[in-house]
Amino acid sequence: MSQAPQQGFTLWLTGLSGAGKTTIGQGIEARMKALGLRVERLDGDTVRQGLTRDLGFSKEDRDKNIERVTYVAKLLSRNGVGVICSFISPYRQARETARRETTNFIEVYVHAPLEVCMSRDVKGLYAKALRGEIKQFTGIDDPYEAPERPEILLMTDRQTPEQSIAQVWAYLAERGFVPHDSAEGT
Amino acid sequence: MSQAPQQGFTLWLTGLSGAGKTTIGQGIEARMKALGLRVERLDGDTVRQGLTRDLGFSKEDRDKNIERVTYVAKLLSRNGVGVICSFISPYRQARETARRETTNFIEVYVHAPLEVCMSRDVKGLYAKALRGEIKQFTGIDDPYEAPERPEILLMTDRQTPEQSIAQVWAYLAERGFVPHDSAEGT
Repeated sequence: MSQAPQQGFTLWLTGLSGAGKTTIGQGIEARMKALGLRVERLDGDTVRQGLTRDLGFSKEDRDKNIERVTYVAKLLSRNGVGVICSFISPYRQARETARRETTNFIEVYVHAPLEVCMSRDVKGLYAKALRGEIKQFTGIDDPYEAPERPEILLMTDRQTPEQSIAQVWAYLAERGFVPHDSAEGT
Repeated sequence: MSQAPQQGFTLWLTGLSGAGKTTIGQGIEARMKALGLRVERLDGDTVRQGLTRDLGFSKEDRDKNIERVTYVAKLLSRNGVGVICSFISPYRQARETARRETTNFIEVYVHAPLEVCMSRDVKGLYAKALRGEIKQFTGIDDPYEAPERPEILLMTDRQTPEQSIAQVWAYLAERGFVPHDSAEGT
């Protein structure tokens, strides 16, 4: 905390439900907190109460959701906070807006084949979507527009969460946003 | 920027339309920026596009508006940013929520008698409200619940904007959030 002033950034984790976004986001958040760095993690659970309680899963509502998150990430990242956003964020245009609006935007494509995500089905959401109990579920009856040139590509069916977290950390360190592993002491 | 790390706070300006909230908020913001301090000013104009575009002026929508602003102020203020919120924010309960949720909350009651605010009528809103073109306008056909124990009371019909800004600045300096006037150099 007493080195050079911390630079803000926006680490944007996009991918299907079950691809591993939350796990990886939490891993980066924990490491930053352990180092006393300023960090905020925004995901559906954390923003639902204060920001997006009124929104559902239509295209319009998803866009509004990302729009509000983008606004918050913009204000935080330009004030030196590391912001970790993990949202399915299936629409390319909404992610491009986030890239344009925020400081040091880093798109992370958290990728696993649909069948792998479905087999994980941590929250039982795919099962519900297949039974028609959830409509407009990304990958089932709603599209996912994959990133074309993400800064980071994580293949979570072929690497462990620890490997993914290390890959993201190395990128952040390379850009000077966090210290390199060797300087960590944790 | 190279002294002690900046402490976050939430300066909450409440009062009738025309009482002077924006002028005072802009004055504090300008002085902080001139000193290189981290500051964000949130008001109807700045949050409308990204955060509250869907909201009107019913009690419910006003509450949602303040709820979202509170969320943003919470995240910024706990990360060392000085946040200046200027909203009519007529409901006591919503302001109390903001007090509870944010870091170093400071309530500023920007007060002028209704007739003074109406005679200023910078944006022509009172005229419209009186003609019935705007409904639910605070002070006309919607209530304003005055703060009971604001940290700062500004009587803007009896003091100049510069005096009000100086009064707020002195309070912030006393709490250690900004340097005292003598140390300013601007």
